[in-house]
Order: sequence, then structure tokens, then C-alpha cells
Amino acid sequence: MRASVIGATGFAGAELLRLLDGHPQAELAYITSESSTGEDIAAMYPHLRGRIDKKLVSMNDLQKIAAGSDVIFIALPHGHAMKIGKELRGSGVKIIDLGGDYRFRDVKVFEQWYKVPHADPEAKAVYGLTELYRSDVAGAELVANPGCYTTCSILALVPLLKNGLIETKGIVVDAKSGTTGAGRGLKLGSLYCSVNDNFHAYGVATHRHTPEIEQIYSEFAGEDVVIQFTPHLLPVDRGILATCYAMLKPGVTDADVAKAFCDMYGGEFFIRLLGKGACPEIKNIRASNYVDIGWQTDARTGRVIVMSALDNLVKGAAGQAVQNMNVMFGLDETTGLRQLPVYP
Amino acid sequence: MRASVIGATGFAGAELLRLLDGHPQAELAYITSESSTGEDIAAMYPHLRGRIDKKLVSMNDLQKIAAGSDVIFIALPHGHAMKIGKELRGSGVKIIDLGGDYRFRDVKVFEQWYKVPHADPEAKAVYGLTELYRSDVAGAELVANPGCYTTCSILALVPLLKNGLIETKGIVVDAKSGTTGAGRGLKLGSLYCSVNDNFHAYGVATHRHTPEIEQIYSEFAGEDVVIQFTPHLLPVDRGILATCYAMLKPGVTDADVAKAFCDMYGGEFFIRLLGKGACPEIKNIRASNYVDIGWQTDARTGRVIVMSALDNLVKGAAGQAVQNMNVMFGLDETTGLRQLPVYP
Amino acid sequence: MRASVIGATGFAGAELLRLLDGHPQAELAYITSESSTGEDIAAMYPHLRGRIDKKLVSMNDLQKIAAGSDVIFIALPHGHAMKIGKELRGSGVKIIDLGGDYRFRDVKVFEQWYKVPHADPEAKAVYGLTELYRSDVAGAELVANPGCYTTCSILALVPLLKNGLIETKGIVVDAKSGTTGAGRGLKLGSLYCSVNDNFHAYGVATHRHTPEIEQIYSEFAGEDVVIQFTPHLLPVDRGILATCYAMLKPGVTDADVAKAFCDMYGGEFFIRLLGKGACPEIKNIRASNYVDIGWQTDARTGRVIVMSALDNLVKGAAGQAVQNMNVMFGLDETTGLRQLPVYP
Amino acid sequence: MRASVIGATGFAGAELLRLLDGHPQAELAYITSESSTGEDIAAMYPHLRGRIDKKLVSMNDLQKIAAGSDVIFIALPHGHAMKIGKELRGSGVKIIDLGGDYRFRDVKVFEQWYKVPHADPEAKAVYGLTELYRSDVAGAELVANPGCYTTCSILALVPLLKNGLIETKGIVVDAKSGTTGAGRGLKLGSLYCSVNDNFHAYGVATHRHTPEIEQIYSEFAGEDVVIQFTPHLLPVDRGILATCYAMLKPGVTDADVAKAFCDMYGGEFFIRLLGKGACPEIKNIRASNYVDIGWQTDARTGRVIVMSALDNLVKGAAGQAVQNMNVMFGLDETTGLRQLPVYP
Repeated sequence: MRASVIGATGFAGAELLRLLDGHPQAELAYITSESSTGEDIAAMYPHLRGRIDKKLVSMNDLQKIAAGSDVIFIALPHGHAMKIGKELRGSGVKIIDLGGDYRFRDVKVFEQWYKVPHADPEAKAVYGLTELYRSDVAGAELVANPGCYTTCSILALVPLLKNGLIETKGIVVDAKSGTTGAGRGLKLGSLYCSVNDNFHAYGVATHRHTPEIEQIYSEFAGEDVVIQFTPHLLPVDRGILATCYAMLKPGVTDADVAKAFCDMYGGEFFIRLLGKGACPEIKNIRASNYVDIGWQTDARTGRVIVMSALDNLVKGAAGQAVQNMNVMFGLDETTGLRQLPVYP
Repeated sequence: MRASVIGATGFAGAELLRLLDGHPQAELAYITSESSTGEDIAAMYPHLRGRIDKKLVSMNDLQKIAAGSDVIFIALPHGHAMKIGKELRGSGVKIIDLGGDYRFRDVKVFEQWYKVPHADPEAKAVYGLTELYRSDVAGAELVANPGCYTTCSILALVPLLKNGLIETKGIVVDAKSGTTGAGRGLKLGSLYCSVNDNFHAYGVATHRHTPEIEQIYSEFAGEDVVIQFTPHLLPVDRGILATCYAMLKPGVTDADVAKAFCDMYGGEFFIRLLGKGACPEIKNIRASNYVDIGWQTDARTGRVIVMSALDNLVKGAAGQAVQNMNVMFGLDETTGLRQLPVYP
Repeated sequence: MRASVIGATGFAGAELLRLLDGHPQAELAYITSESSTGEDIAAMYPHLRGRIDKKLVSMNDLQKIAAGSDVIFIALPHGHAMKIGKELRGSGVKIIDLGGDYRFRDVKVFEQWYKVPHADPEAKAVYGLTELYRSDVAGAELVANPGCYTTCSILALVPLLKNGLIETKGIVVDAKSGTTGAGRGLKLGSLYCSVNDNFHAYGVATHRHTPEIEQIYSEFAGEDVVIQFTPHLLPVDRGILATCYAMLKPGVTDADVAKAFCDMYGGEFFIRLLGKGACPEIKNIRASNYVDIGWQTDARTGRVIVMSALDNLVKGAAGQAVQNMNVMFGLDETTGLRQLPVYP
Repeated sequence: MRASVIGATGFAGAELLRLLDGHPQAELAYITSESSTGEDIAAMYPHLRGRIDKKLVSMNDLQKIAAGSDVIFIALPHGHAMKIGKELRGSGVKIIDLGGDYRFRDVKVFEQWYKVPHADPEAKAVYGLTELYRSDVAGAELVANPGCYTTCSILALVPLLKNGLIETKGIVVDAKSGTTGAGRGLKLGSLYCSVNDNFHAYGVATHRHTPEIEQIYSEFAGEDVVIQFTPHLLPVDRGILATCYAMLKPGVTDADVAKAFCDMYGGEFFIRLLGKGACPEIKNIRASNYVDIGWQTDARTGRVIVMSALDNLVKGAAGQAVQNMNVMFGLDETTGLRQLPVYP
């Protein structure tokens, strides 16, 4: 399986290289960067030294890249993948986009939140949250890999929404992400001295992962769900924790809640249910494709609080992309993804 | 002004020493520790070396300590201060307790959440959130210094509750604290390798600061308020950020919200209003007595999200205690507390 | 290959479990802990949840453990392994000790620096710095896995000592280690608030890895080498950087230095030579078995400065132990150890 | 005393603002920035909000700034101060330069290491390491404030050099600095994800603080001293630790070493001698003007290892600058600088 990575010099791209290197059936074909064309990837990411010695090429000749690849991962800022997808769809190559371009069933929602017109509105992409849409992914040509906050938030509440255990109004998702989520760009807010010993919210009421979460919540709830989503920046490299608040419907018991999680995720390799009263920790899933989920109910308030943790670069990006690739090519879904978390 | 610190070897106690050392009108009388009686405080906290060379004494002879002090700060785990308070009330010394013993108007609430009987139920303590109860503090013999999460959460929403701008049902406070909040005790969860690169919730639905926040919210709302409070552990030493969610009442405008904050805090030295759309950062208030507050409204959900940040060891403990001392002794409230935050 | 881990609840033990889980030819037999006998290892290390669900047993019945194992890793504080080794030598099981007990050719040196009598002085252990003693390891029954500082320091200077390029007098090794090196014990100095934002030396002139480094330096130099070794504690979980200073002998050129490194390590999978002027970074080797080495020469002073970086839990402990296991059992040395570093 | 800060938006400039704000006899006159002229300093450094609400001006009209100031601090990259100094010398204003321009007695050494011609070679600047050159500073018009690594390294060994207790050959200074030392510029190496969990050397054998250290070492030794200086980047915001290695001359005793330190620094407010066997920690001096010094001798090697710790933004930059200002204006040297370290 020849795999190419379009946009290999961002954190998600580099993580794809790490995971594909350890994948027994994948082989790197092309890796691209427009700003660093011609450079050795190991010069930009010395941790890859001695193992991935490919040169970065331009993505100008997409047809050549597609001809030499069985699957193409796109790890670019939003707005680029839809042009690439438009050109390559139908060429036989499988496409997995890690950005936002193809994640919305309704192109208008994309255009409203991302403020750019969509270049490829006819595309039929499958939303690649593997555990929820596995069979669709299996037959897909084009997979829209979900956002990092999105995967974390969706997996936390979908079992309860699907089973009608919580009110669809009043949901609050308070999420906290590591700094790799902000990318490798040179911004004042990404400096060590800006992030270390610090913590703050950002994008309050306006973050683009909001409509993506609502889309899937609504689908499983069977009605429109509007949520409050607040991201925060953690002084860590990797990891997202989403603390999700919802009102339990009258009469719902702790057993109902537990059953909903077990029924839906009991057989999932990458989802670990910690149970009621347990608080997942981001360090326990670091550098792995796992999602750890715990919850608590509060009789005083009638609420359930669900907490989920994942590594934003793995299950929140490159790992889930490889998981989708495995499904698309009929491999065991866990191939190349069974590494245990790195602790501490 | 002779000040003594009962329990000087915890983080709050040591921070009191730092602040009292810089206070032009205070002089250290006694500092106590039962486990380290006879030791030099600088041996336990070498940052104090050369400046505070007092030996730690036992608190066994409370009367002697009281006789040699104008004010006594108690920085002990809950359960101790109520015995000390019982013994010393009426002796003429002013008492400021940094623990939970005297924070509840209703002793039964204390006993229910702290699971110990109260030893001094007749005491009339003033709740020392200075900005809200300044005149009461001025005349108090015994001040219950508020909790760290509590100060942060209360200041965030009280202006909106007082002015009836938000619904009293459905309030969620998602709070994140630095590791000094867990104390200097030897616990697996407090090890560097447990906290660094990590993040998780704890005490979900059960944390003891919950009823303390509710008590003051209810007082300002004029009706019983029940909240959802969730604390999390941040990989930083100092700082708390509370992200507070509430539904705006119908018709409430952004201007109403801004006015409520300005009316209440416009003249406060230690509260800095960052305004709508601004996200406070814990690093911007570090090592100072400031509270930074910002907020956002969300037309999609009808919610207001208020964020407040403070240093849990200063405004959340020792700093507010000194602020209360200043008020109790008729000094300028900012005496010894005007240091700017240390950034970065 | 059935592998047992004696002392599985320390950081090195837990890292062995992570690596053995990913090893295609190893299978866990017994894991032991005296303080947590009967507990589930995943209760102590939740990152292992769902993958390693073994219960911890006591090491009391060593013969039973040996009978059920092909190889036993000992990850205990010094003083224990020599008793285990004494009992098990000759029983057919291979033994790899990660502690200090068997690292010294001269038992007196051990006794002098570790201040305990040796219980098994007749044992013929092989010093398991794989790249230097590979053929000895291949035939060994008992391997003494080197210390973390030791591996890092030795690999940095041995090529220059072996080729007589540096003076044997005046060598200074200034080393810096992550906090996992201090273990998981509950110590004031290991608390998050003690380590975060901090840095300091410790064990100056007295650290036990000093004679271990000197032993191997001397062997390759062909004369007694006495060094200055200073360890420091870094506010990171994993990683060691050793900055090693030595005087170049008269007439030695940059080309001589480069040749010595290339000749000795050019064919080594786990040693990456970054070359002259390059500074290795501990993040580039994190969670991998790699050692990155760079150097600089200084015409003003006549010195060469060699810097080496490794992960103290992998190449400095569990990874090298698995590497030795591979060699002892005739496997490809890199089996189970080819994971790329986790960056960032 | 009207004080102006030329280059107020770097970390050293911002720290000057923090310290001058707390100085009872200083008042801010002008603060300048060429890139942010017209902006509010608190918009760039929100920790200053509500306290320092000055607008940044250009330094174009230097004469006006000088006329409105009693003292001017220059906190710019090297190469600028010498032009400012040339223009302002003789105008009556006192000048304290925090950069490298005026630190060298021999302009050629500056030109060789900084690779620019000197614009003001006739200037007679005083080297402002206050403890060593206090009386010169007192009468100076122009003070060259020492570098951060420099202050730390010089104070560590000067007592031993002055008293002829160590060999002048073979000195190694292995130094480690927090990330504020790299400034607030947008560089890949200064990103959080580049620095967190990382550690590495840089500028090996070529760092510009080397000749500055040698200049003062030589002066106190009475002969030319050439040293090996290696800086490293620590994952902390503030703090430098220098580990300094030197050979004791024959017959020198521990008592001689201790006496040298006590004689020279016994009366210094900002230097705390921890004594033999003690290892200073950077967290114990954080945000203060203190320098903590400890040492160890090693009978095996004949060496003394001296360790010194300071906050690179305070005693290594802005704090020492204010200390010099105090001396220049005849104030108590500790005015505005008595704050205790912030711990933890």
C-alpha cells in the first residue's frame, strides 16, 4: 500500500510519518511541502533521522502523486483539500483529508463557519469517525477525518444521545487541548514563554469544531442539537480532555448510562470505558490511538458529566486517519496502531 | 502589627510569609508547625533564606502566641481552626482562617460536606471575600478566608446574579487549578511525573467548594442556587481559571452584562475587567493579588460565559488574607499587595 | 519467549511492560511486586488498561517464576538482584538486571560506592552495553544492564578513548536527567511543585554512576581514567543529555574525531551520529531506543565537547534490556524496538 | 527620578517596567518601541494592565527623551546602544545599557565576537556587575550591565581566582538558561512544542558571553584566563544555573574555599552562600535579585565545583540594572529589589 502525505511538515503530517513508518503494510510514496520543497524531512524533524530520509516534493503534479499512491492523506489548513479532492476524485486513489473541508453534510454550514466558498460541493465524503461510521468508511473513496476536539466530544455523548438518555438542550462541552493543536506556525501565542505555566480559553462561542460536533450529535439524537463549546489551551504538547455536561432525562438511572456506553463501545479496541466515578487523564493515552471515557452523575443537579481523553495528534488526527485507511483497505483496523501509550 | 502564622509550612503558609515580609506595617511574631517544631523555616523553604530566619514553634501554647500577636493567620487543614478559634475568640487577637471551618453560615452544611462535627458552632465569622463583604470584615474578630476555587467562581457570576441577569438554574462552573492547590503532601498524584504533561478532572460532583460557592451565589441571587462544579488539575504551580456558564434571562443585552460588571467592580483595585470577548490568562495574574475577568455572550445558545483567573496562593489564599488584615486594621487595603504579576 | 519482570511497578518495570507488549516474540509470564501483591498492574498504571491485565505476584517463589520463564528482568533497587541472581544462576533461565548489583568487574568498587556487602561475588555477569559488548551478551546467562547516565556518558567518549584521541586526565561529564530517573517514590524533591520550573545539581562528586563510567572508560583507554561527573535534575519526565568535556591530544584533527565516531558507530542502528557542530536534543529521541550524538571542537581551548542524548527509560533502562534479550536469544537486535521517537 | 526604557517590549524591558513600578523613588518617563510605536504596553503585556498604561513612543527624538529623563535604560539587541550612547553621552542623563555594546574594555574583542564595528569606541563605560565594581558604578555616566550567563558565571569563580585558589587553566562553565533568555522573537526553536520536555546545548564554543566572562576572570586572576563555556536551553521561563569546574591549586583546603566566598560576599545582600555540599536551585531565586551559590570539592579529582543560580531577567538583566541605578543615584542599593523569590 503506497501512501502519500500532502502537507507533511505540520504536526499532523509528521505524526502520519511516524505511524506509517510503523505500519507493516504501508510504504511511503510522496511527501509534500510547498514552503520546503526539496528539503529532507529529517532536517525539519530530526526525530525522523535515519528512518525517513525522503525529500519533500511540491504537490504541483497531483496526477503523478496519485498515480504513484494507493492512498493520499491531506494534512493542510482548510481550503486546500477541496481543490485537491476535486481534481483527484475518480482517479482511483483513496483520499483521507485531515482538515475541515469535507466534514459537513451541508456545505452551507462549512461556508458559514469557515468563511470561504466551497470548491467541491458535489463530493460525497464519508465522515471518518471510525467507530460510528465504520461501514461507510469501508466503501469510501473520500474520507473526511474528524477534528480533534470533535472526535473527543462526539464519542463522549453519542451513546447517551442515541439512547435518548439526556436532554438535547443545555449541553456544555468544556474542552482543553495541548499546544500541538495550534500547529507549528510562528505565533506569539505559541511561544514557550506564552504557554508554559499558563492556561486560558480561546474562540469562545466561535470555534469551528462546534458545528461539526452538533452535526453528529443531531444525527444520533434525531433532532437538532445546539451546544456550548469552549476550547482552552493546555501547557502540554499533546492531549485533549473534554468535560461534557448534560441533563439526564427523568428516570434515567446510573445503570442506563453504563449500559449505553457498554452497548456502543464494549467491543471497540480503541475505546476504554473507565466507568462511573473515574476521571480519564490525558497522560494515560498519550501517543496512542486510545480514547479513555469516564463519567459521573450528580443527583443534586440531575446531570451527567462525561469526560473523554485522547491524543489530538493520534486519535484526533493521524491515528484515526490510519485507522480509516485500514478499514478502507480491508485490513485489521488496529494494524500499526497497537502501540501502548507512553507513560510517563 | 505583630502577625503569627499557624501552620507555616504548607504552601499557603509559606506564601503568607512572603507577603508579610514585604508588608511595611506587619512584623512576624510566631510561625508554627507541629511536624517540624524547632526547625528553621528556611531549611524547608530555601527561597526564604537570609530573610526569614525564624524557628518554627509548636502551637501548643496558643495563649502565649495570642498574647504576642495582633493577628493570627491559620493555614491548617480543615478541622483544626475551629478548635483554635474556640479557644482564642474573645482574647482580643484578630483571627483569619484560611481553611474551611468557618466559611458556612449554616454549620450543618459544613458538617455534611466535610463529614466532621463542628467544634465551634456559635462563632460569628465574617466571610472574607473582601470585595463583597468589606464592611463586615472591617469590624470582624474572626474572618473565614474563602477557598481558592470559591473566590474565583464567586467573583465571576455575582454581578450577574445580583442584577438578575442570568437564570439561577443550570449554572456550570468548570474550573482548573494549579498543583499548589493540592498542597505539599507526599501523594502519588502530586509527583512531577504524575502531573507534568497531564490533565484531568477530580472530585466531580463532590468537591467541598461547591456548597461554599452556592452559599454566596444564593445570597446575591436572593434564592437558592444549585450549581455544577467540576475542578481539574493543571500542570502549572499556580493559578486558577474558572469558566462559568449561565443562561441569560430573556432580553438581557451585552450592555446590561457589561454594566453589571462595571458597576460592581469598576472601583476595585484588585479586579481587572478585560471586557467582552477577552479571555483571561492565569500567567497574567501570577504571584499577584489580581483577579482578571472576561466574558462572552452567545446568541446561538442564549448563554453568557464568564471566565475569571486568579493566583490560588495569593488572591485565592494568602493575598486575600493579607487584604482582609489590612481592612481589619484600617490600613489601605492594597498595602503590601501592589506587586505586579510576574510574567513570564 | 516467556519473560518475567521482577519489580514491575517502578518506572523501568512499567516501561518493560510497554516494550514487551509490542515485542512480537515475547510473552509476559510473571510480573511481581512485594508492596502491591495481588493488585492489577493496570490499577497502578492505567495507561496499560485493556492490554496488560495481569495481577502482580510476590517474588517469594523464585523457582516457580524461573521455571515458567525463559528470561527474567530484575527492576529493583540495588541490593536485591544479587540475592535473586545467586539463587537463580545455573537454573537455565536468562537474567537481565537493570540495577547496579552486577555492573562492576571489581566487587570492592561496588561495595565502596553502594555501601553494602555483595551477596554474590562469584557471579560472572556481562556488562550489557550492547553496542560495546554484543558478543559477550550473546552468550551470557546474567547481564548487568548499564545505568542510564552511564550508557549516555560511555557512548559519548569511548570512540575517542579507544583511539587515543583525548587526554585521559581532566574529563568532565556534566549530565542532566529527566525526573523518571528519581523513581516513583514519594519524596519532597519529586513533587511537581518541587521540579516544575526548577533545575539543580545533586550528588556532586558522589553519584554512583561515576565508578561505572570510569570502569568502561578505563577499559577502552587502556589506563585508569578518573572523571568528574555531575548529575542534574531536569523538569522533564524522560531524557538524559550528557555534555562531555575532554582535551584533544596534540595534533588530533576534526577528521580524526569524526572518523573515530563513524568507525565505531557507523553500523549501529540505535546510534545516530549528528556530526560536528550539531547539538542533540532529548525530545528527538523520546520514547525510543536511539542515542543521538553530536560534538564540537574548540581551537581556543583544545577541547572536544561531545553531547549525547537518550531516553533514560528506554536506551537507559528497559529498551537496552530488551535489546540485550534479543541478542541473548539470537533475534534481530532491533525486534520490538523500532518505534520512532514521539515528537513533539 | 525619571526613568525611561528604550526597547520596552522585550522580556528584559517588560521586567524593567515591573521593577520600576515597584520602586518607591522611580517614575516612568518614556517607554519606546520602534515596531509598536503608539501602542499601549498593556496590550502587549496584559499582566501590566491597570498599572502601566503608557503608550509606546519611538526613540527617534532621543534628545527629548534624555531631557525628560534622569536615567535611560537601553534594552535593545546589540548594535543599537552604541549609537544611542554616542549621541547622549555628555547630555547629563545617566545611561544603563543591558546589551553587549559597552561590556568590553577592548573594543576589538567586541568586534571579533559580535562581528560588527563599534560606533562609539571612545566611550568609558563601567562594567556594572554591582558587587564587583560598586564604587565605579557610583560615579559612572554610562554603565554596561552584564549579560545573564556572565553575571552567574563570574560571581561563581571570582572569589577563588582573586585568592589564587584555583588553576586558571582548564576551567569549564556548563550553564543552563530558561527560555526568556532567547527573547520574545518568533523562532521555531522558541515554540512551546520545541522547548517543552526538551533540553539541548547551543552555541557550543562560540557563545558571545564567553569573552565577557574571560575578561573579568582575567582581571581578578591577574593573568589571561581562557574558559570553556557551554550554554543549554532549559524548559523553564526564568533562571540560570552555572556549574563551574576548576582545579584546586595544591594544598588548598575546604576552609580556604569557604573563606574566599565569605570574605568576598559575606556582606552582600543579594548573594546567598549556601556553603559546601549545597546545590542551589533556580526556583529558590525566581523573580528575585538573589544569587544563590553552593560548592563541592572532590578529593578524587582535585576539583572544586561551584554552582550559582540567578533569575536571568532580574539579577541577570533588569534587577541588576535597577541595582546599578540605585548606586548611581546614591540610594540604598536594595531599594525596590527586596521582594522575596516566588516559590513555588
